[in-house]
Amino acid sequence: MESKPFFRFLFFFFAIAFLLLFTWTHLPYAPPPNVTTLLDCASNSPWCTSKNRFQSKQPSITKIPRATATTRPRHESAAPRHPVDPLTIQEFNKVRTILSSHALFKSSKNYALHSVVLEEPDKDLVLQWTKGQPLFPRIASVIARANGESHVLTVNLETNEVNVLNTAPPTGYPMMTIEDMTSATWAPLSNAKFNRTIIERGVNLDDVACLPISLGWFGENEENRRLIKVQCYSMKDTANFYMRPIEGLTVLLDLDTKEVVEISDTGRAIPVPKATNTDYRYSEQKIQQELNLINPISIEQPKGPSFVIEDEHLVKWANWEFHLKPDPRAGVVVSRAKVRDPDSGVMRDVMYKGFTSELFVPYMDPTDAWYFKTYMDAGEYGFGLQAMPLDPLNDCPRNAYYMDGVFAAGDGVPYVRSNMICVFESYTGDIGWRHSESPITGMEIKEVRPKVTLVVRMAASVANYDYIVDWEFQTDGLIRIKVGLSGILMVKGTTYENMNQVEAQEHLFGTLLSENVIGVIHDHYITFYLDMDTDGSDNSFVKVNIQRQDTSPGESPRKSYLKAVRNVAKTEKDAQVQLKLYDPSEFHVINPTKKTRVGNPVGYKVVPGGSAASLLDHEDPPQRRGAFTNNQIWVTPYNKSEQWAGGLFVYQSQGEDTLAVWSDRDRSIENKDIVLWYTLGFHHIPCQEDFPIMPTVSSSFDLKPVNFFESNPILRIPPNVEKDLPVCKPAGSA
Amino acid sequence: MESKPFFRFLFFFFAIAFLLLFTWTHLPYAPPPNVTTLLDCASNSPWCTSKNRFQSKQPSITKIPRATATTRPRHESAAPRHPVDPLTIQEFNKVRTILSSHALFKSSKNYALHSVVLEEPDKDLVLQWTKGQPLFPRIASVIARANGESHVLTVNLETNEVNVLNTAPPTGYPMMTIEDMTSATWAPLSNAKFNRTIIERGVNLDDVACLPISLGWFGENEENRRLIKVQCYSMKDTANFYMRPIEGLTVLLDLDTKEVVEISDTGRAIPVPKATNTDYRYSEQKIQQELNLINPISIEQPKGPSFVIEDEHLVKWANWEFHLKPDPRAGVVVSRAKVRDPDSGVMRDVMYKGFTSELFVPYMDPTDAWYFKTYMDAGEYGFGLQAMPLDPLNDCPRNAYYMDGVFAAGDGVPYVRSNMICVFESYTGDIGWRHSESPITGMEIKEVRPKVTLVVRMAASVANYDYIVDWEFQTDGLIRIKVGLSGILMVKGTTYENMNQVEAQEHLFGTLLSENVIGVIHDHYITFYLDMDTDGSDNSFVKVNIQRQDTSPGESPRKSYLKAVRNVAKTEKDAQVQLKLYDPSEFHVINPTKKTRVGNPVGYKVVPGGSAASLLDHEDPPQRRGAFTNNQIWVTPYNKSEQWAGGLFVYQSQGEDTLAVWSDRDRSIENKDIVLWYTLGFHHIPCQEDFPIMPTVSSSFDLKPVNFFESNPILRIPPNVEKDLPVCKPAGSA
Repeated sequence: MESKPFFRFLFFFFAIAFLLLFTWTHLPYAPPPNVTTLLDCASNSPWCTSKNRFQSKQPSITKIPRATATTRPRHESAAPRHPVDPLTIQEFNKVRTILSSHALFKSSKNYALHSVVLEEPDKDLVLQWTKGQPLFPRIASVIARANGESHVLTVNLETNEVNVLNTAPPTGYPMMTIEDMTSATWAPLSNAKFNRTIIERGVNLDDVACLPISLGWFGENEENRRLIKVQCYSMKDTANFYMRPIEGLTVLLDLDTKEVVEISDTGRAIPVPKATNTDYRYSEQKIQQELNLINPISIEQPKGPSFVIEDEHLVKWANWEFHLKPDPRAGVVVSRAKVRDPDSGVMRDVMYKGFTSELFVPYMDPTDAWYFKTYMDAGEYGFGLQAMPLDPLNDCPRNAYYMDGVFAAGDGVPYVRSNMICVFESYTGDIGWRHSESPITGMEIKEVRPKVTLVVRMAASVANYDYIVDWEFQTDGLIRIKVGLSGILMVKGTTYENMNQVEAQEHLFGTLLSENVIGVIHDHYITFYLDMDTDGSDNSFVKVNIQRQDTSPGESPRKSYLKAVRNVAKTEKDAQVQLKLYDPSEFHVINPTKKTRVGNPVGYKVVPGGSAASLLDHEDPPQRRGAFTNNQIWVTPYNKSEQWAGGLFVYQSQGEDTLAVWSDRDRSIENKDIVLWYTLGFHHIPCQEDFPIMPTVSSSFDLKPVNFFESNPILRIPPNVEKDLPVCKPAGSA
Repeated sequence: MESKPFFRFLFFFFAIAFLLLFTWTHLPYAPPPNVTTLLDCASNSPWCTSKNRFQSKQPSITKIPRATATTRPRHESAAPRHPVDPLTIQEFNKVRTILSSHALFKSSKNYALHSVVLEEPDKDLVLQWTKGQPLFPRIASVIARANGESHVLTVNLETNEVNVLNTAPPTGYPMMTIEDMTSATWAPLSNAKFNRTIIERGVNLDDVACLPISLGWFGENEENRRLIKVQCYSMKDTANFYMRPIEGLTVLLDLDTKEVVEISDTGRAIPVPKATNTDYRYSEQKIQQELNLINPISIEQPKGPSFVIEDEHLVKWANWEFHLKPDPRAGVVVSRAKVRDPDSGVMRDVMYKGFTSELFVPYMDPTDAWYFKTYMDAGEYGFGLQAMPLDPLNDCPRNAYYMDGVFAAGDGVPYVRSNMICVFESYTGDIGWRHSESPITGMEIKEVRPKVTLVVRMAASVANYDYIVDWEFQTDGLIRIKVGLSGILMVKGTTYENMNQVEAQEHLFGTLLSENVIGVIHDHYITFYLDMDTDGSDNSFVKVNIQRQDTSPGESPRKSYLKAVRNVAKTEKDAQVQLKLYDPSEFHVINPTKKTRVGNPVGYKVVPGGSAASLLDHEDPPQRRGAFTNNQIWVTPYNKSEQWAGGLFVYQSQGEDTLAVWSDRDRSIENKDIVLWYTLGFHHIPCQEDFPIMPTVSSSFDLKPVNFFESNPILRIPPNVEKDLPVCKPAGSA
């Protein structure tokens, strides 16, 4: 009994040691002789499994919409065509070559590139650029660790010039590389005490799966070194190891050296929950016939979709046009969104740039193994890095177009994340607008227009949780930004098997979901950066406050009514908005210099939704770091360096570089180029339906034209008529 | 110039007089010789145009889903098959016959039936009933006006017994009949002063369209007679007369006698806005080619839909089953909603009955022609009466099934409202649940399930406004209740043509939408009756309060966390809920006697959305009548007589019979058969995009299982696979 695990451990230990050694020796930085080899990925990048590695032939699962003018070129030969196009494979390789001979990295035995993305040209240049003009010099923005220091640099791809900037904030570290995360999950297994503990818990070492858990920041003894906590699970008899925590066992690890700093074990008395009913894979289900009751259903467009994607990134659909690109940190970046004016035919600016800036996911359990779980998924893990290839027909409907991401691994080698974003038209059967005349008036009128929208989607799997982010464009000018939460809960082991053993439910810090399994209460905040350019860059933020006005005696049979009072925000503090149900406002971003025919300023409003607010103590360390959730809405003057709501270096940061800090500078924001920030919030008290995998919960907010158009912009769209609709047959009968 | 209008007026006058006389003489109550004649409708019912009248052949626009087991029988021969099935044509005729010989009506020269619906059997009987058992005695509930009095009666269709109940509330009148509304719109034209005013405003009498506007209740001089206010518009050169108000002209009318009580004219200086750009009909558009940019798109199910409708009213789809019927006041009534337990296969109770109980739409202008506009659309106009036939392919997608309503006109004659409700499966491309494993864990997993839902829809056109009400059933047990607002704004004429003429926008009471047109600020509240029977009738209401808990010094590196504290509501006042963003709760309806395997009480929660709250003074007369909007959530003990949140007799009521009054009795609600009430609220500050017809704005709330199932109920649904999906061709190419 005792010897077998020991041999297994020995074998394992040497296997890991060999792997580490192999990895180490494979960190040279001269580019391999040809691009294709490069794209086969360095063996040290786990992203480069056979599934993720670049395929020079078209991936068979990707269906190119029939009407799309362009077909996807081979990534090796892709060239930028728009000023904000992402770096290409050739550009990534050039960055890698240039940096490998730079003093900073040449002298470093162990460096890593934590982020390599395009340094976008200045906004005014991009705004002036039109198709056909030459591109601006392409510059890469690089965040790297070398010799134990973080560096922010730019690499000019025309001049080969490297510029080392002194913009690293006082605290915090760059986003982890995938290699950081992967090596952290293996590192504990090289610690004998850890392995002993695992075995004592009755888990075989070869059944252990570990997760790298960012540890936030909680004071001095966690400063000045890059740390991570690792917790582990048993994956015996289930793919859903998340439901089998080895509770209370936390390994504190140095991320740079992979040294185990501390092992805390507070869960010896807690059994590892059973695997029963935890697997969610279709192949593992005992299928009951009656659950399969839905006949095939599909959104069909036999004449093809109505959008085209020009030059790989420019999406044109109905009255919309925008630039779309994958980003390792933000996921999806929408730029230069413009909508066509139905009267003039002119494309009018709506939003210069919009993306998921940061997430904040604090768990609500103050005990040793849980207090630190206060994830900031974009700045710590890379929201785009975690966006897995979408599953055609299930993640997106049949008519979807798929866009790949091209990112750099920690060693600078580019790799392709295929099918990372999908674009499709959605038709739910909903109504764009309608009116029937009542027979009271004697008029026979029934005018109804269907609603068709364009959805841009990605789905990030940040370990257990899955975030689905949709940008939905409507022909009436509305943009809906929706976040769906699915995936798997982060659960806690417990000795309890039934609520009748529990004295007070609050002491669970959550809900008993199954025997020995607690779903811990947590919040989700997703903060969006929205650089609105409402019909031009200089805008003002106006709170249109809905106030009760009491009438004077004798003025009216009414005692009260509501009036709208407009307040233009002069400075940032005027625009720090906590939503109030009983003192409501609309929130407009207007162009004060442009008016409609009858004199209203043209505008867009943010229509809140998913407005759960963070209720933690503002001085609580996680809330200081997540202070960008102190308000649902903020407005800042445009500043190229203020894009990441939790700060540029979020990992272990202390909160000195957040949106809250910037906004407290209280700069002028009236009739200026301004950025709107909106935070979608969710409180999540888990319930048994979330076990073993959660049905999707969604919330959304809207950006909606308000006196932007002279009148209803979809007045003239045609109704559906039978003769235009497709003729379909069941599969197999054609 | 002068004589032509006069002759036109004379002709008009005599035409009206003749029509009234003709109508009068056509109020006998002996049934005509055969049913078909009856269904051709009395000529005095404007509902019975050729479009609305019963068609004994299948209406050609209605497509019966291929997989539906039943086809729609001819309405003449329809027979009830379920205890809560609506009255049939034969039953309506029997009610009419019985009443025509009843003393109350025989003696009345001028009576009208304001409501004839099924008196549902007692709930305990319905709960015991199973298919195959005989039905309970069919009883009609009738609300009538006779001899200037309102009466509530029941008519037993087996025994012919008529029971006159003394349940009429102290104030208020029944819902208007369609005949009330129609005659009110014509009545002012018989008043010379009115006609003179119209002509003075430059509007030809034959271009006048008038609307019957409920006047609320504002004090003594409006009591003891049934009154209405009428305002008029010019329909010259547009179908959208709503945009051409003859501002400030208000006719106060006696609804019973049609006598003009008072004419108020405060708008002589205000021009009638021009017709330019107001017509929304497709036939009137100058179509620009570029707007027609969306290729045909459709939800296709070539194997047919997955639902069946048994016995005309029982909808069965996937794991859901519910009874569906049209109602003249509520619109759509969903009864006996049950969901199948995926483990036991048993159908479990969720909701006994749910419907739109009342609407409250106060406008925010205290001036003479506007202060009284505080509509309560269900109790005043009949939300179901105003539900027009849906437009196939536009109101509902191609795969929809249409259900007709059968209602009684004021004279008791039944008529068919065809295609009043549609039922369809919706697939938006959304995701039921998903999880991808990150390569960090080395597991290759991508499991995603598509989301398909079942939607029940109606669209009520209450004069200008259109309300789209959806009941959406999801396979994960969630019911989403969504209200969409579209149609046409109620606008106000003004002398202003541009905002540069306006000193303070608040004095507009709204937004200048076009030259001389103001969109007045208003609210919409839609209150739903939700008789939840969570796994049985006796339930409790639990507020699960999310509270910040500060940690003790030294307890944790965290200063704070959130905990969930459960409070069971003992009495009604404990369940008067004003939502609070910064003191949030979940709201569960649990069955305290049923627990899950691990001991959580089974429950459903109401997930708020569209939570705008009424901010009017509680003592303002409209808010007293609309006091059911003082809270977003209420819970009352089940009481058959408490169904209409604004009271049984809403018209001109003073608010003594509202939900707020019932709830203040503070009855016990713990472990009792309880009813949940939820109010969806919207503040609407109009914008130019709402002119001349509004793009749909929607809000929704959810009823969601919470520890109702042991685990995710859709764990075992299959993913989409290409081979099951339809094969489609563009129209015309097949």
